Amino acid sequence: MKLYDTESLPNPRRVRMFLAEKKLDLPREQVDVIAGQHRTPEFLARNPDGTVPLLELDDGSYISETVAISRYIEERHPQPALLGRGPEEKAVVEMWQRRVEHSLMNTLVAYFHHATDGFGEADRYRNREWGEHNRKMAIEAMQRLDRQLAKNEFVAGKTFSIADITALCAVDLAKALGIDIPAGCTHLGNWHARVSERPSAAA
Amino acid sequence: MKLYDTESLPNPRRVRMFLAEKKLDLPREQVDVIAGQHRTPEFLARNPDGTVPLLELDDGSYISETVAISRYIEERHPQPALLGRGPEEKAVVEMWQRRVEHSLMNTLVAYFHHATDGFGEADRYRNREWGEHNRKMAIEAMQRLDRQLAKNEFVAGKTFSIADITALCAVDLAKALGIDIPAGCTHLGNWHARVSERPSAAA
Repeated sequence: MKLYDTESLPNPRRVRMFLAEKKLDLPREQVDVIAGQHRTPEFLARNPDGTVPLLELDDGSYISETVAISRYIEERHPQPALLGRGPEEKAVVEMWQRRVEHSLMNTLVAYFHHATDGFGEADRYRNREWGEHNRKMAIEAMQRLDRQLAKNEFVAGKTFSIADITALCAVDLAKALGIDIPAGCTHLGNWHARVSERPSAAA
Repeated sequence: MKLYDTESLPNPRRVRMFLAEKKLDLPREQVDVIAGQHRTPEFLARNPDGTVPLLELDDGSYISETVAISRYIEERHPQPALLGRGPEEKAVVEMWQRRVEHSLMNTLVAYFHHATDGFGEADRYRNREWGEHNRKMAIEAMQRLDRQLAKNEFVAGKTFSIADITALCAVDLAKALGIDIPAGCTHLGNWHARVSERPSAAA
């Protein structure tokens, strides 16, 4: 197996953290998205969507999409479980992973591409007003996450899961974009400090 | 169990189709989103995100997010498998489900909310240019899907899966919004005719 990775981006980091929590290490090849390497015919032949991360399996096939890659790793290496155990917990973890991804990670990525310099020339379409609106939605999402973390040690409940990985990579992306944890969100702040101490956070 | 449902919307239809493929029937309660019933304190107490569909479990807890609800159903009722069998197939199904959801379903929903009358007054923010851009992205996504269906009987390969459910509900939403299958996309057209004949498509 080989992971096509971009060190500086939040979605590849989600996979690197997932692997680190499993104590797995994979060969990695860097994809320079600023230089447009994800849009070369060579990379598009591997992944028509042109997204990173991308996992190459031993049979030469490819899996794209951060969560699909995570699913493959979980199926091959079930311990520790990061996608939940049993029907209820699996559903709750998936619900929170998707909530955080949709309301926080994706809004921050939209802010980055539409209202900042983004990938520069590689971003062909920009809508600044849409980008700024996403900044507001991201801040609201952090406030909702704070309310969840007021009652739960981790994003999806009592156990560290993929939902925490998505949330940590998103909150760190927010910070890199100049969006701090909102004032008063002490539960989110405490959770962030705690999860950042895990060795996998440095992956 | 009880499903909070809105007959006219594509995401609740995805869950209804998933249940119908499993030959399962659940009590359903309709949520009138045009009247803003998903934003009432009563509904928000069940699901702070205010989204439909929503599954109420027998212990009184709730699962939101279409795919998390589908996961719960699959875990409880594994046959026929709609989320794949074995690590590779599960990952490929999840990859395609997410590709279709992100590039086709979500772009159509953005077009609906931003460039049409949408939910009317319930849509508080509109960005028409963003909506029109999403219309273009949805058409490009149908063209990519056509290329996948040129080589595969179903969206994720040889077997009907949740990726076909997401794609069918999205293509039918496109049609309802006045966006037909693009000219020349004969593989997508043939797949659509074939999948529309399944009894679950009427769910």
